[in-house]
Amino acid sequence: TKIGEIGVEANVKDLERVSQKLVNPPFLPEHDQVAKGGPKVVQVVMDIEEKEIEIKPGVFVQAMTFNGTNPGPMMVVHEGDYLELTLRNPLTNTMTHNIDFHASTGALGGGGLTHVAPGQQTILRIKCDRPGVFVYHCAPGGIMIPYHVVTGMYGALLVLPRDGLKDNNGKSVTYDKVYYIGEQGWYVPFDDKTGKYKRYSSPIAAMGDTLKIMEGLNPTHITFNGKVGALTGDNAMTAKVGETVLFLHSQANEDTRIHLIGGHGDLVWPGGSFNNTPTVDRETWSILGGEAGAAMYTFKQPGVYAYVNHNLIEAVMLGALGHVSVEGEWNNDLMEQVQKAGPIV
Amino acid sequence: TKIGEIGVEANVKDLERVSQKLVNPPFLPEHDQVAKGGPKVVQVVMDIEEKEIEIKPGVFVQAMTFNGTNPGPMMVVHEGDYLELTLRNPLTNTMTHNIDFHASTGALGGGGLTHVAPGQQTILRIKCDRPGVFVYHCAPGGIMIPYHVVTGMYGALLVLPRDGLKDNNGKSVTYDKVYYIGEQGWYVPFDDKTGKYKRYSSPIAAMGDTLKIMEGLNPTHITFNGKVGALTGDNAMTAKVGETVLFLHSQANEDTRIHLIGGHGDLVWPGGSFNNTPTVDRETWSILGGEAGAAMYTFKQPGVYAYVNHNLIEAVMLGALGHVSVEGEWNNDLMEQVQKAGPIV
Amino acid sequence: TKIGEIGVEANVKDLERVSQKLVNPPFLPEHDQVAKGGPKVVQVVMDIEEKEIEIKPGVFVQAMTFNGTNPGPMMVVHEGDYLELTLRNPLTNTMTHNIDFHASTGALGGGGLTHVAPGQQTILRIKCDRPGVFVYHCAPGGIMIPYHVVTGMYGALLVLPRDGLKDNNGKSVTYDKVYYIGEQGWYVPFDDKTGKYKRYSSPIAAMGDTLKIMEGLNPTHITFNGKVGALTGDNAMTAKVGETVLFLHSQANEDTRIHLIGGHGDLVWPGGSFNNTPTVDRETWSILGGEAGAAMYTFKQPGVYAYVNHNLIEAVMLGALGHVSVEGEWNNDLMEQVQKAGPIV
Ligand SMILES: [Cu+2]
Ligand SMILES: [Cu+2]
Ligand SMILES: [Cu+2]
Ligand SMILES: [Cu+2]
Ligand SMILES: [Cu+2]
Ligand SMILES: [Cu+2]
Ligand SMILES: [Mg+2]
Ligand SMILES: [Mg+2]
Ligand SMILES: [Mg+2]
Ligand SMILES: [Mg+2]
Ligand SMILES: [Mg+2]
Ligand SMILES: [Mg+2]
Ligand SMILES: [Mg+2]
Ligand SMILES: [Mg+2]
Ligand SMILES: [Mg+2]
Repeated sequence: TKIGEIGVEANVKDLERVSQKLVNPPFLPEHDQVAKGGPKVVQVVMDIEEKEIEIKPGVFVQAMTFNGTNPGPMMVVHEGDYLELTLRNPLTNTMTHNIDFHASTGALGGGGLTHVAPGQQTILRIKCDRPGVFVYHCAPGGIMIPYHVVTGMYGALLVLPRDGLKDNNGKSVTYDKVYYIGEQGWYVPFDDKTGKYKRYSSPIAAMGDTLKIMEGLNPTHITFNGKVGALTGDNAMTAKVGETVLFLHSQANEDTRIHLIGGHGDLVWPGGSFNNTPTVDRETWSILGGEAGAAMYTFKQPGVYAYVNHNLIEAVMLGALGHVSVEGEWNNDLMEQVQKAGPIV
Repeated sequence: TKIGEIGVEANVKDLERVSQKLVNPPFLPEHDQVAKGGPKVVQVVMDIEEKEIEIKPGVFVQAMTFNGTNPGPMMVVHEGDYLELTLRNPLTNTMTHNIDFHASTGALGGGGLTHVAPGQQTILRIKCDRPGVFVYHCAPGGIMIPYHVVTGMYGALLVLPRDGLKDNNGKSVTYDKVYYIGEQGWYVPFDDKTGKYKRYSSPIAAMGDTLKIMEGLNPTHITFNGKVGALTGDNAMTAKVGETVLFLHSQANEDTRIHLIGGHGDLVWPGGSFNNTPTVDRETWSILGGEAGAAMYTFKQPGVYAYVNHNLIEAVMLGALGHVSVEGEWNNDLMEQVQKAGPIV
Repeated sequence: TKIGEIGVEANVKDLERVSQKLVNPPFLPEHDQVAKGGPKVVQVVMDIEEKEIEIKPGVFVQAMTFNGTNPGPMMVVHEGDYLELTLRNPLTNTMTHNIDFHASTGALGGGGLTHVAPGQQTILRIKCDRPGVFVYHCAPGGIMIPYHVVTGMYGALLVLPRDGLKDNNGKSVTYDKVYYIGEQGWYVPFDDKTGKYKRYSSPIAAMGDTLKIMEGLNPTHITFNGKVGALTGDNAMTAKVGETVLFLHSQANEDTRIHLIGGHGDLVWPGGSFNNTPTVDRETWSILGGEAGAAMYTFKQPGVYAYVNHNLIEAVMLGALGHVSVEGEWNNDLMEQVQKAGPIV
């Protein structure tokens, strides 16, 4: 039997079908934390868009994206649901793409069943039988796999437990807000003559030079949500003292280490998979290349929190940094400036 | 008391002695998953072999190997057993070697007791008192430690719990197959004049140039089992739908992140140590430099699964990629191509 | 409300206040493993010192340090205690510094409340409400954040559970000794003309060149406790057979992987946070950039153990290596040299 030849039939005929409208990161589609009713077929439509993006003032990449954003949108289902994706590759694009879901079960994660040339669409349905947050990405084959991934083509799928999240003691926990951060390493060729990063006319034009940089394994830029500053200043994530925030973080290629300056990971699930007991009180947590993770924190203090890849070179010099702006009352019991800066006495 | 001066005597006189015949990776010696009878002394003989290997068409390394393979062979015992290794360094070799077992207890892991010059042999016995899968490697001292390791000298030792493996609920689990993948970063000097990777006449001749590349910390090539393609195509690992496969993966120097495209880590043991509760539903799992790990998966779908280091640059461009070819019936409930690629409608 | 504006008052007026005298790594201030009495305010005074250090014979860095050492000193409190730090930046320094405690709760971890120019001091009090070992570091803003961290400004804070440490079964465990190892990646510019690493007159003079190396993400040197050899030979850590040693390891910027050659991590706490069940029998354990971790081992054999970052290039060539010298009786049951090196038979 080859991939896609029917063995077992799908049990989806009698299930309710719902459409999910995708939204731009760091936001998630509207969803229930605890599932209502039985398993559903959740239908999403996603367009691939090749486009040049300015990842930092003056630095341009011939990016490839799911849905026009980097990372691609978060999809949300509950364990036991089916996700049915219509994947469209408009004629305005130049390359063949596909999709591989880490959440799915079946050789190549759907990658072998979803190749779409410009002008084509395909429909893939996967059963979401493990709760967690999982990467999806383009994987069209050979050298195109790393090239499409490091030029932007990945996103994530959140599979919530039907009865919601549980803490390390098995007690139900809910979040007041959820944010989705996609970290991307970029490998941008530099022009020694002009002293500037090179700019190209198309993904294929950029490919030769870019592959050479990729081979060296060290990205030249790293972004959270596609652009240095996408999550800082006016674009900062927000919360209030007392609110519990779930941070979902995906990295499709390079390892990273996440830290919330001034906060913690109250609950951090191994691999972002919710059938594992979450670890607690984490100062920094690992997200591997090819992993989406989940960390929950209840804010206790107001202020601007930096949310960083704690290789601080990667955060500050390469760009892997966001902000969370938190409103509320300062608690001097937790932290107090007892004496302002003044002369040494 | 110095290393090797007798304090406590070994309790091995009355134990059964068995010989274990080593086999080439990705295979393991024949073994029982649950131990039969009491602790044994498991005797193995291993020859060191220095030899040039072609890690990729046209790319040659003056490798050093345990038993002629990269990685060196997997040894298998049960917790409480003793491993007794005869390590031989034939006169045809040029260097002094030794062995350090991460599974062992005693300063330098046996490294201080096992130096063998060409023409020499030594016998070391270690007690295997912790269940897990552990790296062994050559560590002859100083700069020779990283040089021998990154030119190929490492392998792994599997110490099974006497009563077999347990899942996250403490329930016994068994595997139908077990594969052993050794990941190796290579640092091959490049000749700008010829546009080719350099080739050398001996390990010592290659050393100066190779150390310079090593210093830069980024490998030029990464292999699974010693050669790009050692585990793909005709050499793919195989399984059937319904079979449970244990994947043992070792990396003696660089961190890696393992993903089975289209599958999961059903059970992944922290550090590959079986006294830990395994995590479940992992999309990707960490193997640190200097660690051997264990992940178990029951295949539910047929097809060709890629087994990769999910830094996809390292997988596709540098070579860290294998295949698992799985036979069986496709299950459309888990994944279905609802609509083949066709015009956008 | 902004950072530092009073909301809740601190509950410290009636608490006992004790002064803690900081000591140089790898040592810790005197402390009780189980807390005596109720929560205290633990007062420490720490001076910042900019100074050139020789990280390896002939290799000099314009370092910035907390208390004159790299890493900065370990502070020790119990869960529920308050740490009150007087941070002084003597007039002999050239830069503004501050401190960010990963253990603390409040935006920027105290970084926004503690900027001190040369000649200034400030006092910060934090509540230590989560047990674990946590990094602190300088984070003065922008590019100065990675620059101050990779030139030496970090340390760690140990927050012990009031009732002491527990093993994986919830049973109390104590240590006979505790050592603190700070790993530092250095990015030292090289002078192609002289064939030597460059030397500079001040941190600001070194900055431009150093940032260029940092951008490449690969350190040129890595030290344990500030200097190649700080923990080897005569400076080795020591223990006796039967003693239980707690190893605290911090890395403020780069990921590392720790291995004790010939020993194990009997107990390794995820993230060094003691409310997590420790994993056991680890051959190697992860310390992320921005993380301090804790591993406990009971020595069973005498000899010199190497304690390494198990990227052996980073250990041996770059410098990330220490020793533990252990006295006692050799146990041939655990490891025996059955046959010394001799002719192959
Ligand atoms: Cu694509
Ligand atoms: Cu993938
Ligand atoms: Cu060797
Ligand atoms: Cu080792
Ligand atoms: Cu500073
Ligand atoms: Cu930090
Ligand atoms: Mg890196
Ligand atoms: Mg995940
Ligand atoms: Mg690397
Ligand atoms: Mg999968
Ligand atoms: Mg292991
Ligand atoms: Mg904190
Ligand atoms: Mg690195
Ligand atoms: Mg050991
Ligand atoms: Mg910690």
